[in-house]
Amino acid sequence: MTDPDPFARTRALFDLPEGVIYLDGNSLGPLPRAARERLAQVVSDEWGRLLIRGWNEAGWIDLPARVGARIGRLIGAEPDAVRAADSTSVNLFKCLSAALALRPGRRVILSEAGNFPTDLYVAQALAQALGQGHTLRLVTPEAVAEALDEDVAVMMLTEVDYRTGRRHDMAALTARAQAAGALTVWDLAHSAGALPVDLAGAGADFAVGCGYKYLNGGPGAPAFLYVAPRHQAEAAPALAGWMGHAAPFDFAPDYAPAEGLDRMLVGTPPILSLSALDAALEVWEGVDLAALRARSLALSETFLAALEGREDLALASPREAELRGSQVSFRHPEGYAVMQALIARGVVGDFRAPDLIRFGFAPLYNTPAEVARAAAILVEVLDTAAWDRPEHRRRARVT
Amino acid sequence: MTDPDPFARTRALFDLPEGVIYLDGNSLGPLPRAARERLAQVVSDEWGRLLIRGWNEAGWIDLPARVGARIGRLIGAEPDAVRAADSTSVNLFKCLSAALALRPGRRVILSEAGNFPTDLYVAQALAQALGQGHTLRLVTPEAVAEALDEDVAVMMLTEVDYRTGRRHDMAALTARAQAAGALTVWDLAHSAGALPVDLAGAGADFAVGCGYKYLNGGPGAPAFLYVAPRHQAEAAPALAGWMGHAAPFDFAPDYAPAEGLDRMLVGTPPILSLSALDAALEVWEGVDLAALRARSLALSETFLAALEGREDLALASPREAELRGSQVSFRHPEGYAVMQALIARGVVGDFRAPDLIRFGFAPLYNTPAEVARAAAILVEVLDTAAWDRPEHRRRARVT
Repeated sequence: MTDPDPFARTRALFDLPEGVIYLDGNSLGPLPRAARERLAQVVSDEWGRLLIRGWNEAGWIDLPARVGARIGRLIGAEPDAVRAADSTSVNLFKCLSAALALRPGRRVILSEAGNFPTDLYVAQALAQALGQGHTLRLVTPEAVAEALDEDVAVMMLTEVDYRTGRRHDMAALTARAQAAGALTVWDLAHSAGALPVDLAGAGADFAVGCGYKYLNGGPGAPAFLYVAPRHQAEAAPALAGWMGHAAPFDFAPDYAPAEGLDRMLVGTPPILSLSALDAALEVWEGVDLAALRARSLALSETFLAALEGREDLALASPREAELRGSQVSFRHPEGYAVMQALIARGVVGDFRAPDLIRFGFAPLYNTPAEVARAAAILVEVLDTAAWDRPEHRRRARVT
Repeated sequence: MTDPDPFARTRALFDLPEGVIYLDGNSLGPLPRAARERLAQVVSDEWGRLLIRGWNEAGWIDLPARVGARIGRLIGAEPDAVRAADSTSVNLFKCLSAALALRPGRRVILSEAGNFPTDLYVAQALAQALGQGHTLRLVTPEAVAEALDEDVAVMMLTEVDYRTGRRHDMAALTARAQAAGALTVWDLAHSAGALPVDLAGAGADFAVGCGYKYLNGGPGAPAFLYVAPRHQAEAAPALAGWMGHAAPFDFAPDYAPAEGLDRMLVGTPPILSLSALDAALEVWEGVDLAALRARSLALSETFLAALEGREDLALASPREAELRGSQVSFRHPEGYAVMQALIARGVVGDFRAPDLIRFGFAPLYNTPAEVARAAAILVEVLDTAAWDRPEHRRRARVT
């Protein structure tokens, strides 16, 4: 007998505030009950009772690999090819610097102007620091493939655009980049947990991603990185520390990188945040990613259909389902105020300057009924111009 | 009326396991009750209820600066010169790369061979990645001053040696380095919360330190960094991300560093771990650092006096109090087994290869009576060769 709604089970694993339709899990996932319980236990029983022995007896030292393995299943990684550590930006820096070092004769990092800004900032600062003439070449999403020439060391892309939800063809672009002699660094911030990813199948070289969006690891949760097995023994990131040493507890003065992926680790891992992420990932046990994708698209279609043809909303996302991640965005000249009016009515999405309103769909906890209701509330806000009030235009510091 | 024992008050703020004398707070500080309470509140009331609104309404976005300000008081920093972020290794990388960029004509990073290994690894990997001929010059602690020549770009030292507790004269060495035209990067991992530090008075340029030792922020707690106000507007670390942008929520494609110290931030901060550290730092409110130092030295002297003259223990720390941080170390050929025998008897210190046993003294919670008792137990372990058992020689993964 098949479960008529496998996502009713997963929704029950979250602590969701009453009266809120939360369509902002692409910015910060909600609280899994298991994360709250685990954190209380780690604090009281592990840190409080075991103290320093927690590193061995509670297995803290293995958390980067253990959490990495849980994430690996969601992104189609080979065994032992993912670690949880640091922030997405820091992981991107490690992967990008390691990739550049593997292509010493080339000087171009290729990306698109619409990539998530921190990715571009990481590349800009690294290129400048290296002082060897590296440059960041930015093109439109459609022009990436043809911009792959023999100068390109690394193609650095985010699979799913954070504003529009537009999805790159990872397999095709990876093949094209490698045919041009370049390596690839994929940012999976809006992919991991949003749709099936197949890093191994695509032959990706490096990847990074975020723990606090669709993985629900909590605010600022540790991020992850992936290095294809064929590169692990030669990766030499510009940023190295004791957790990446072959024998960290020998305290040797000379750096000798760990044989495998552990060389991508740097400092002492943040055990409290990592434990919350580890527990949050338990929600994914038994979740079929094809079913997740089908539900994600069904939610998106429900939302889109209800808003189709409105002249005051310009769809910023691809209309074709297969070209989208798990979000839908619209442009509205008063987008900020529209989103504030929605939030005041219990529909939480978010705003991205200058005029985008974003709605993320997370099948683990978003239901078809609440998505339909959210669309109806948006229609009402627009039809009645309910956004047109001074308090909805007042900008908060973080948007 | 003066408080006869101000540290009885602070000890009561910790949740300490019964039957344990914990002398390993220089490796991982114990659990402050306030950290447990805060974390439960942040998880349930902020993440759980506010969701994405937590960044504004719970002030998450301000945590790196707020926690930094609390730490700043303990290390004698100017106002707004400290941020909590990332790991110590990552912060060191940012500070070291920024310092090197401020001394473009020089190619030597000067340190000592006994510096904490991750500091050396960070410098080695950075020097190699820069590909501009930077080298790491390692000398003995005593030879640092005379090794400061016109090639030295940065003098990178840990104030208090993690093995021996030997303390550098920060003010004198900083002055000497600057007279030679070099910048300084100080690692305060074993200083912050262990003894009064006066960064501003010493004229230090950059500093980093650890949140999980004497600051009791929890396993792998976020670390901190300091940049002297005179360098903040020009610091350009090799590692930059959106939290260091002048306007992170404008999502502009080009990096423009924040005017001040925020440019040293990179990715999204780990709010759960940062909140625990923030609460842990409440313990320091009203603590007089001169009184802390006096108590620290009294504890160390109590311990040393009880072990004075033993032929089986070689003191690895300076005998003179003023030359030590807040720890005492001995060499013993069977140090590992000795420490395991101590731990089996409820006295927790730690072991550093090849033969060091380390005891940290944290006046916030260690009492004179328990330190005297710990010394007596060590005497008994040695006098009865209680360490000489197979189970005490079995090495754990993390030491």
